[in-house]
Order: sequence, then C-alpha cells, then structure tokens
Amino acid sequence: MNLFGKDLITTQDWEKDELTAVLELAEDMQKKRFSPKYTKLLQHKTFFMFFYNPSVRTRQSFECASTELGGHAQYLEPGGMRLKTKKTAGEIIEDAARVMSRYAAGIGIRMLEDKITRYGEADDMLREYAKFADIPIVSMAHDKYHPCQGLADIMGLRKHLGRDLKGKKLLLYWGHGALARSWCSVQEALLIYSRFGMDVTVASPEGYNLDPAVIESSKKNCGDNGRKFEITHDPVEGYRGAHVVYARNWMSPNAYHDGEFHKQEEVDKALQHSRWICDEQKMKLTDKGLYIHPMPIDRGHEVTDEVASGPRSIIYDVAENRLHAQKAIMALTMSKFDYKLKKTAAKVA
Amino acid sequence: MNLFGKDLITTQDWEKDELTAVLELAEDMQKKRFSPKYTKLLQHKTFFMFFYNPSVRTRQSFECASTELGGHAQYLEPGGMRLKTKKTAGEIIEDAARVMSRYAAGIGIRMLEDKITRYGEADDMLREYAKFADIPIVSMAHDKYHPCQGLADIMGLRKHLGRDLKGKKLLLYWGHGALARSWCSVQEALLIYSRFGMDVTVASPEGYNLDPAVIESSKKNCGDNGRKFEITHDPVEGYRGAHVVYARNWMSPNAYHDGEFHKQEEVDKALQHSRWICDEQKMKLTDKGLYIHPMPIDRGHEVTDEVASGPRSIIYDVAENRLHAQKAIMALTMSKFDYKLKKTAAKVA
Amino acid sequence: MNLFGKDLITTQDWEKDELTAVLELAEDMQKKRFSPKYTKLLQHKTFFMFFYNPSVRTRQSFECASTELGGHAQYLEPGGMRLKTKKTAGEIIEDAARVMSRYAAGIGIRMLEDKITRYGEADDMLREYAKFADIPIVSMAHDKYHPCQGLADIMGLRKHLGRDLKGKKLLLYWGHGALARSWCSVQEALLIYSRFGMDVTVASPEGYNLDPAVIESSKKNCGDNGRKFEITHDPVEGYRGAHVVYARNWMSPNAYHDGEFHKQEEVDKALQHSRWICDEQKMKLTDKGLYIHPMPIDRGHEVTDEVASGPRSIIYDVAENRLHAQKAIMALTMSKFDYKLKKTAAKVA
Repeated sequence: MNLFGKDLITTQDWEKDELTAVLELAEDMQKKRFSPKYTKLLQHKTFFMFFYNPSVRTRQSFECASTELGGHAQYLEPGGMRLKTKKTAGEIIEDAARVMSRYAAGIGIRMLEDKITRYGEADDMLREYAKFADIPIVSMAHDKYHPCQGLADIMGLRKHLGRDLKGKKLLLYWGHGALARSWCSVQEALLIYSRFGMDVTVASPEGYNLDPAVIESSKKNCGDNGRKFEITHDPVEGYRGAHVVYARNWMSPNAYHDGEFHKQEEVDKALQHSRWICDEQKMKLTDKGLYIHPMPIDRGHEVTDEVASGPRSIIYDVAENRLHAQKAIMALTMSKFDYKLKKTAAKVA
Repeated sequence: MNLFGKDLITTQDWEKDELTAVLELAEDMQKKRFSPKYTKLLQHKTFFMFFYNPSVRTRQSFECASTELGGHAQYLEPGGMRLKTKKTAGEIIEDAARVMSRYAAGIGIRMLEDKITRYGEADDMLREYAKFADIPIVSMAHDKYHPCQGLADIMGLRKHLGRDLKGKKLLLYWGHGALARSWCSVQEALLIYSRFGMDVTVASPEGYNLDPAVIESSKKNCGDNGRKFEITHDPVEGYRGAHVVYARNWMSPNAYHDGEFHKQEEVDKALQHSRWICDEQKMKLTDKGLYIHPMPIDRGHEVTDEVASGPRSIIYDVAENRLHAQKAIMALTMSKFDYKLKKTAAKVA
Repeated sequence: MNLFGKDLITTQDWEKDELTAVLELAEDMQKKRFSPKYTKLLQHKTFFMFFYNPSVRTRQSFECASTELGGHAQYLEPGGMRLKTKKTAGEIIEDAARVMSRYAAGIGIRMLEDKITRYGEADDMLREYAKFADIPIVSMAHDKYHPCQGLADIMGLRKHLGRDLKGKKLLLYWGHGALARSWCSVQEALLIYSRFGMDVTVASPEGYNLDPAVIESSKKNCGDNGRKFEITHDPVEGYRGAHVVYARNWMSPNAYHDGEFHKQEEVDKALQHSRWICDEQKMKLTDKGLYIHPMPIDRGHEVTDEVASGPRSIIYDVAENRLHAQKAIMALTMSKFDYKLKKTAAKVA
C-alpha cells in the first residue's frame, strides 16, 4: 500500500483499508515507540504546522510526532505568513504552497472558530493548499473535519472494545457549557465510527444540527454496514445500551452570520441547557459505556468529574493516541514507508 | 545515584550529594560538550517549555540543552494552553499534566512577575503540575525559586574560587533601578550558597525583606555548616571581606497587593535608592571579590560598567553554565543516566 | 578556503571567490540534498534566528536549512529579548552577543520596515552584534542588505542563463502597489549582479532613488568588469534587450522621517504609478528575459499573473535556492567545512 504524497482532509476521503493501515501501524509504533525502524523516517525533514488557531494537544502531539520520526516540525502562526486577504496585499496560496513544497515533507493546517467568517471556509482553504502543494496537506482540525482525532478515537476503542467494532453503539452527546466548540471532532467521529461498523445515535437539544452533508455520509456509512443511525433530542434516552459515550459541546448552525463568528451568542444559548451533561446516573443506562472526549474537557458542564476521571474514561489513552496515529500518518504519507495490512512485515523502503 | 523522574522546584528540596552530582556532571559536560556520551541521552525525546513570562537566557539555554542532548524542546506560550482560569472555561492542570506525561520526557515552567496575582502562586502551580505529572517538572524560574540559576552560580564559583566554598563570604546586595525583579534568583542563591558552606550577608535598604521562610532555611543551612548569616541595611559595610558580590535588584514585599503586581510603584520606590549600586569603590573593600549576576544586568543602576565588565566579573561564565547545569539536570532526571559521585565512571544505562 | 567565523552582512563585504564558493557548494547541496556529507555539519548545534520582523520564506528556509544540516534553529522574537531601548531598562547588545556566543554556532537577524526609526539603523545594529559576538552574524534581511537573497538570485541565473553571467543585462524595475518594501533585496541585487559581470539598468519613477552609496558601489562593480550601469525614469525603455527583469516595489527615500516609518504615505504615493507594472507587452522588448522576484509577490501590481506564472518566471526556483544558499553559508561559516573552488574535492574537516 503506497500512500506517499496523499492528503488527509477527512478520513471519509480515504479507503477503509488505508485507515486500517494507519491504525495497525500506529499500534505498532506505540509498542515500539523509539525503535530505529521508525526514528529515521523523517530524518532531516521538515513538517510545517500552520496554526491559525492555537491548540494544546495538537501542537504538542504533532511536534512530538515529528521529533520521534527523526524530523522537525516548524511552528508557524498566521501573523508571520503575510497572505493576501480581502483587506491587505500579500501572497496567494498558490505561491505559498508551491514554495513550501520545495522545502518540506508535509504541511499541517489548523483553522476554525474565529479565524473564519463562514462554516466551510477553512475546508476550502485546505483544499486550495492541497491543489497547489506537491506535498501532503494534513488537517490539524479545521471547521469541518479532524481526521487525526477520529483515528486516535478508533485506536482507543480498538484497545478497550476489541478490534471488531461492528454493532457497538456510539452515543454522540451534546454537552452544555460556556464554550462554542467547532464541529470538526464530532463530525469526524460520526464519519469514522460509522465507517467501522458502529451504530450511531446523535443526541442534542433542538437547534444543534450538524452539517447535513456529514449526517448524510454517516447514515450511508451505517447503511453500508447494515447498522442504525438515529437522532434524538432527549437528554437521556440515547444512553440506553451505548458502548461509547462521546459527550462534548458544539456550536449551533447559527454561530456564523453576517460574516462573523458569534461566540458570545452561542455561549449564552448553550448555558441554558443545564440538563445536558454526561453524569454517572445517565451512564448507568449504558452497556458498561466508555467515556471518550478529544480534550480539553470542560468539566462540570460537558461531563462530571466522576465520569471524566472514572474507570470507564479513556480520555488520556485517546490523547496519547494522537501522537501514535499522527506518526503513522506522517510515516505513510511523507516518507517512503511501505505498509502491508494484517500485521505482515512492515518494511522501510 | 538514580534521579530519574525527580522534580526540581528548588535546590533546597534535593540532597547535597544530588546537587554535587549535577555540578560534577555539568563540569564534565562542559569539557566534553559534544561527546557521543552525552549527545544521545534525549534522542527523539521532547522537553516541554512553558513560558508564562518571556525570557532570554532561560529559553536559549534550555532549548540549546535539549538540542545538545539529542532531543527537542517545544516552546509553549500560555496563550496556546487554554487552561481553566477564574474567568474562562478551560483545562484543569490534572488533565494537562497527565496528557503531557504521555508525550514528553520532562516539563519546564517559568512563571513570575505580572503573570501571578500573589507571591507563592506560581510555586503552588508548579507543585500542582508535579503532583499529577509522571515526568519531572523543572522550574525555569518562578516567583520563589530558580534552581538552575543557583546551580550555574555554584559551578561558576567552583571554577573561580575552587571546589571548597566553605568559609567564603557572599554579599547579596540589593541594586536600585527602573526594575522590579522577582525574588527567585536571589532566594535560590541564599539557599544554595549557604548549603555549600558559605557565610552569607544580605544587604538592602529597609523595606526590601525577602521571604521569611527562605531566610529561615538559609540561616539553618549556615548554622548546619557552622557559618554566619547576617542582614544589614547599610549600603557599604557588607562589602568588607566578601569573596563574592551578587548585586541585583529585587521587588519589595508590597509588590503584590489587591490581587495585582504593582510594577510602577516598585520602580518609583526603587529609583530613590541611588546609593545602592555596586561600584569599584565599594568592591575595594572586598577580599578580591568576584562580581556575579544572573543577567540581564541593568548597567548603571545595579552595577557600574567598570565592575560588570571588569576582570573580577564572572557573569558570562555563569551564563554559559546555565547550559551545562541544565544539560546535567535533564540527563539525570529525564534519561536513564547513572552518575556516581567523585568522578568515578559515568555510565549510560 | 576557510570562512569559519565570518559574518555575512552584505555580499559586497566578501571576496568574489568566497561568493563563488557559496554558489558551487549550494549547487552541490541541491543535487545531494540529504547526503551524509552534509547532514552532520551542524549536528547538535544551535542557530539563533532573531526576527524583529516576521517573514515567511526567510524563517522557513533558515529553519529547514538548520534541520537539513543536522542542527536546530531557535526562533526568537524581540518581545522575548528584553534589550535596552531608549525607553526601557534592559540588556545591552554586548552582553546579549557575548552570552549567545557561548550557546550557539551562529546568529541570524532580520530587522527592517517599522522596526527601525531611520534607514541604516538595522545595519548599525547588525554590525554592533558582529563586533561583540564570537560567532557569525548573518543578515536575514535588514534595512540595507539581503545577502542570502542575492546569492539565491545568482544561483537561479546560473541555472537558467549559464555560469558566465558577463554581459547579461539586468533590468531592476520599480513596481507599484499597496506596499512600501524595504531596499534590502533590490540593493543586494544591484551589488551582486554587477559583481558577477552583468550590465545593470535601474528603472523607477522620479523620487524613488536608492541609497547613493549602494548605487556608487554597484557602478564601481560594473566599471571593474567593463560593464554599463544606467538609471532611467521611463517605465518601458529599460526592458529593451534585458535578460533578467527584477520587478518589485520599493519605498521612497522619504519613508522615514521624524523618527518613524510612514507606511501609509508611501502606499498612497506608490499606488499612483499604475503604469509601473511588469507585463507581457513590456517583456516582449527583452531578450527572452527571465522574470525574477524574491517573493512574496504582489500580483496585479508589481507584475501580472501572466508573467509571474509564465514560462520565463524563475521565482519558485529562486525561492528554493534560499534553502541551498543558506545551507552553504552556514556550512562554510558555522562548521569547520573546507571548500576548494572549481569543483575539486570538498572535504569535511
């Protein structure tokens, strides 16, 4: 399987076998973290990280991933980019992407929340970069998708539920709080959990619909696997029989209007739904449900401390998986690393 | 001696033998700076540096130290951390520390001056990180202590005064100027100079007392070694017979009040004490006294150019020592590097 | 040829043989990009990059260059430097430079536009650093010069016009637009293109004279090679017979006055000269002229898309050359790398 040069904007763009290759390789990289098999793959190579929005986990894990593969991640912020905007003279993406392709092995981009003026703008920008760059573009979370988080999630589920996730039930649950989180992580979860054969239930108050196109794709993924996809607006019912509860805040579809991100409006609205919290009482309805979240967690709003720090919480494992999954993605797309599925020999080309 | 995993918040928390191990190893690292014995100790490993406050020397020396040990230091600023505060939703330290422990070999934290609302707040925070992190927390200067500076100082004194510092006299001297410096460097100096058997005199105008608990510990250290600890408010007398003059500004105990750091009040107050400057005339009273300072120096206020650039100034040597001391600390606490005291064989485990 | 420790403030300070060594080595480094011959030259060594002004290409290419030579570039911003200024207490350059010399293999500095109060201030500062640092100071673009860009340009011309540039004609052409660009790149071009035997024509509207001392040196370089140096204020005539057209905006000599950089005044003035754009029609007057620009390009103002993306544009090649030229400069001045001219054996000392 040769993934050299491939962009990763969402897992939905990749074949399932390709995603499985990432997962298997990531699992081996976790076991043999500093093996010389892996520590030279990006030796003397550069990975550009463009953080239009700051991030904790994403920056730490991508920069660690580069270091552990022998390479170096450059932390770039938009202030230093001098790109053309509606208001200022500057460089067009074609020029930026073509030059960066001469310098580096890959480019990661993070862009969401207040750095865009409408939902979809960041996705357009990533695809524009991908069009002109000769090297892979990897989403480090943008308005629509967060493929690395999705892969880290599945890696966590494979560890705690076993490799075959078919028929396991995900509850994707909206949590209240003083935040207006982007759709990227939860939408990626819908796409990839459904892809790997899980039943999916989305629970939120009225008015918190996600992107209809993503819902459509997730339904289709479920259908292809003979599984169920459900939506509910009840704060409790979805918990019944769930194997995994993913409780997290997300913004409403009205968060962007008049060319701006209206965070305060969203926060005010979200704080009203105080029943929407993942707590021990609701978790009792699940089938020994795991608690999962991409972090940082808003404890006391999205979830209680009891659940987040409880024995069924796999948040730290999933956070750790970001590192391994990203190393696998970078190895497969940015180095000439050949991978054969099903645990047959992995060879360095 | 196994120091793997040990936090370093202040040298006072460590055994004297442990501190001596750092010094001996640092001295060997200076001699054999790029020896393969040392350049692989942190290979492919990450050191997180959290700079709540910016810094010149500390950032440069820690990042160089990581590079020279074969590893990589990530420069992290608080804007990117999204931690929970009184005013904003965000991540708790437990979550941040537990995840970082999965990614990295160690964490350095710098927090002082305007980034805290009361003296001691940063020390509490470092100890909170240390409680939850499985990897070492190293102070890169915080409100109370600056252990790396203290070790670099002693390394400089060992070079210029010999290995046995017993009975040598330190004058810690308050300098005026348009600054309101944190207590961390001077308090660490009191603790570690007294620990290594020196007589200590602290000289400052009235109203510039340091932390009573630190003064108490320093006195006790002196007592344990049969040495003297004195405080004076005379701007000249303390110089008599001193072997080392450490002249530097520090803020008064009133710098924090009403939940804020009042820099301008401190600057206005400090500028009134113009006699408090280390100059050639006062230095003549010493016993060929060395001039020492952690830099950056406020020349013309804390000290004259004549002294700072004179033949008895060891400021550049001490600044260089930061690099070697920090490499030794990182090697001992973040890699499985075994060290035996008294220059017997050092082995890489 | 031993260039170890040599500063690079402008190519005019170097011998022509030394510049040729950089070019030959850079060309070999391009061919053998990750050869072990080159990837250990800065192993475990640090290069400090001081970005008083942000930059895309310069930061990316210098940081990549360090990584590809096995070293590490530290990205430093002035906010973290705490240097002494007219208004604030802080460190003098002597102290900063002497300490950095203990930590690193070299220092790059970028300073121009709004970070200075008069033309020449940054050049003075770089030379002050060079005076006190024991390690090489390399300009990463400052108010007067941009030596790395000049060398990357010549490397591009050698590829597309052949190694002997004697008698080839450069048109350095002022372009209009909503920018007020520094003189560094175009002045460095005048100096080094003339040095390598090219005829030079500078074309700009009245009132856009460059530094008279640089014009004088360029004229002298041309004279020494028996070539022509001309200045015209006609927006078309200079194109006749040109082999290379370097069309770019630059600020007027009035950009700095009353101790400030007056960007808006410059932008307003520059936008009036809309005939001053490099377009296909004018390019037809050249002798199959190449289009060259240091990027980022202000398309639609300095040059049309047709020319910038046309078959005679060498902008991406030149941008790539920044990497190779800077690797060669760093190898020659910061590592003990011996180079013999004329493609005889290069040996690692």
